[in-house]
Amino acid sequence: MGIDTALSEISSLLGNRLSRAKVDLAHHGQSEAWFPPSPPDAVAYPESTEEVSQLVRICHAHGVPVIGWGAGTSLEGHALAVRGGVVVDFSHMNNIVAINDADLDAVVQPGITREELNHELRTTGLFFPIDPGANASLGGMTSTRASGTTAVRYGTMRDNVLGLEVVLADGRVIHTGTRARKSSAGYDLTGLFVGAEGTLGLITQITLRLVAQPETILSGICRFSKFNDAVDAVIATIQMGIPMARIEFVDATMAKAFNDYAGASFPEDPHLMVEFHGSDAGVKDDSARFAEIIADFNGDGFEVAQKPEDRTALWAMRHNGYYAALALRPGAKALTTDVCVPISRLAEAVEETRAEIDESFLEGPILGHVGDGNFHACLLFEPDRPEEMAEVKRLSRNMAQRALRLGGTITGEHGIGMGKTDLMEAEHGAAWDVMGDLKRALDPDGIMNPGKLVRGN
Amino acid sequence: MGIDTALSEISSLLGNRLSRAKVDLAHHGQSEAWFPPSPPDAVAYPESTEEVSQLVRICHAHGVPVIGWGAGTSLEGHALAVRGGVVVDFSHMNNIVAINDADLDAVVQPGITREELNHELRTTGLFFPIDPGANASLGGMTSTRASGTTAVRYGTMRDNVLGLEVVLADGRVIHTGTRARKSSAGYDLTGLFVGAEGTLGLITQITLRLVAQPETILSGICRFSKFNDAVDAVIATIQMGIPMARIEFVDATMAKAFNDYAGASFPEDPHLMVEFHGSDAGVKDDSARFAEIIADFNGDGFEVAQKPEDRTALWAMRHNGYYAALALRPGAKALTTDVCVPISRLAEAVEETRAEIDESFLEGPILGHVGDGNFHACLLFEPDRPEEMAEVKRLSRNMAQRALRLGGTITGEHGIGMGKTDLMEAEHGAAWDVMGDLKRALDPDGIMNPGKLVRGN
Repeated sequence: MGIDTALSEISSLLGNRLSRAKVDLAHHGQSEAWFPPSPPDAVAYPESTEEVSQLVRICHAHGVPVIGWGAGTSLEGHALAVRGGVVVDFSHMNNIVAINDADLDAVVQPGITREELNHELRTTGLFFPIDPGANASLGGMTSTRASGTTAVRYGTMRDNVLGLEVVLADGRVIHTGTRARKSSAGYDLTGLFVGAEGTLGLITQITLRLVAQPETILSGICRFSKFNDAVDAVIATIQMGIPMARIEFVDATMAKAFNDYAGASFPEDPHLMVEFHGSDAGVKDDSARFAEIIADFNGDGFEVAQKPEDRTALWAMRHNGYYAALALRPGAKALTTDVCVPISRLAEAVEETRAEIDESFLEGPILGHVGDGNFHACLLFEPDRPEEMAEVKRLSRNMAQRALRLGGTITGEHGIGMGKTDLMEAEHGAAWDVMGDLKRALDPDGIMNPGKLVRGN
Repeated sequence: MGIDTALSEISSLLGNRLSRAKVDLAHHGQSEAWFPPSPPDAVAYPESTEEVSQLVRICHAHGVPVIGWGAGTSLEGHALAVRGGVVVDFSHMNNIVAINDADLDAVVQPGITREELNHELRTTGLFFPIDPGANASLGGMTSTRASGTTAVRYGTMRDNVLGLEVVLADGRVIHTGTRARKSSAGYDLTGLFVGAEGTLGLITQITLRLVAQPETILSGICRFSKFNDAVDAVIATIQMGIPMARIEFVDATMAKAFNDYAGASFPEDPHLMVEFHGSDAGVKDDSARFAEIIADFNGDGFEVAQKPEDRTALWAMRHNGYYAALALRPGAKALTTDVCVPISRLAEAVEETRAEIDESFLEGPILGHVGDGNFHACLLFEPDRPEEMAEVKRLSRNMAQRALRLGGTITGEHGIGMGKTDLMEAEHGAAWDVMGDLKRALDPDGIMNPGKLVRGN
């Protein structure tokens, strides 16, 4: 068998850093989400690009699937070995290769997490701003084009990766991009691999943009009776050019979840949570203008958390939204939807979704990155109850189709993985065929993360 | 001959909007730059995506080259028909399809210029911020991944195109991206076509991000004795997170050129020209902090042009830099170099370049987008003097190789076209082969803008 020969050769390469231990296969065969377990044939722990390249050459020669693994926080089953093969766990490749203060960039290996990176940056006056909530690996964040609460100000991984080192499906190592801030030198290969979910190659090094830690950070929260008013306030804020670093929406159900889980005492109404980054004068001016806007739109109780500990508490609560939602129904799993629409259609998209979930027999709080038009419903269900599984799939599919009808996308930040391939044609039409053409050009044997993103992959 | 049959079929499709008039062929056979004329076999003026699709289908069937043409402002000969074929002039496809105020986006046809777009936007409170100086078409700007003076604040075309309609090499029409602000739904095809210089398809529609017109704009200029000090002041400004909308460097030779051409009276020293966008309070605070920084770095005479007319005069002068440079040597052409390096290496890159030009028998003022590490030397020469042609090519090649040695790129914003393909391998190594793989996947017969960007194309 190809797989046995391949594993024997990889074993010679990596020694006991190729694991076939049951516990290891089981750990790498599950995900944060509801997908059934799918253990690989083996788990590899390479320590260098050269080892990754040799491993991929072996897999290429024997037609064995290769699946990258970062921190295992994907919500779409990206790292599941649905056709067996070798999971490449990057936890041993978690170094910072360089921090270039003057250039505001850092070169890192894919296994480092964003919290580890920011910890190392804490004395430099710089930070890496992308914050998906989970303490994901930078390799995983790059491969899923992650974003999160700060994208409204700092963009997504697409905007913050300057260059990559990639091991291609045949084991060749290429370098994309440079440390220059911009380039017009040919096709944007960096952008092609960001968000490719490991289907075109394995990322072994990442050059990231950093930004200056703001002089002043100011966070706050305010309440609205009607969701529409909250969204209209956000649109007005964006149109006035007031720079927000975060602007998050939680619905009434989510406010209740926070009260139950985090001991908060919010009115069970829609809320906006907001943050401004800038100079002292700039932030004061921004927040004062924002306060005027929310008053115009019937928002009230704008409370400012200027002390770092209050701010940390506010965002920790927001980041634990997934767990707070799960706690609404002990023992349940969540299918976390992830659509993104033009902001002018956001109120409509959320209202229709809320109404549909209210009519359903399942519960699902809604929260989102409202400045981007991106929102999630955490649909709570028990996967071994077929009628519940069918219902969350129905609700999720309806949300995606609604997003497309409103000019949006089936995923704002979580990616396709194995959860959304059946929606790709609806979003992209003939452009999905083009993705298939690119896949076949770079991975003709289909060994890189099969079963994900591309048709027939 | 394939070309004759193809032109006959296209003529049936477009009638007198397929031109073989000598004056038309000659106009579309030249460029802003120094390249020898290269007229196409015909010039087509389609009026719809459907016409472009049919035209490309005909060219595909007969193996005839297809070259897109926007406003003809490329400095790297992008639109020259070096292997003959049909130039597709998009001047009849210059409509605004939609302006979506609430979503801060606009959908446009490729032939509209950025000044035309901003004129139409003037009453909306929004604008399209990318400013390469020339009044380029949006299609051309997209295809070259253009940027310019405001990229330090607003990014490049890469960051400001949300989606595209593209006619592929076989005539299929695809749509990439959505009007949502972000997406993780598969490969970033939008990013692949932005900067592809028409070698993968023809762009027939573009969805652009817009931004709010700032409440306050403040511009200024200051003088430095030493270039190093100017660059160090910029690095300090970026590291403190002071948001600049523009920060431009001109060297002493360029200051002299402005004095001669625009009747200015600058000391013949290096200068920084800067602009801040924001709220009234924010801009005042930003410029005050910037003034402190430049004082720390021995800058002097920070003069603020707060009145719109003074500001317009300042940037009009900067935008006419190319013509001011040309006027230093009447009758000469300019080879405008375009490298971009990490900002920590910028002082070194400019100083070495300045010294090398000073040692040469040719003149070449330097100016650049210093916040991005991007700068240009306008090398003045007469193309019919072989020793001058050889010398500008030597200087230009040395600049590119210097940029690569310092971790940068051979082109920050002008693109590859026919001027820089021989430097692509030096910048990209094996990644250039991958670009070739992608090109062959999407255009196996090589009809889209042959002779540009890709090896053997």
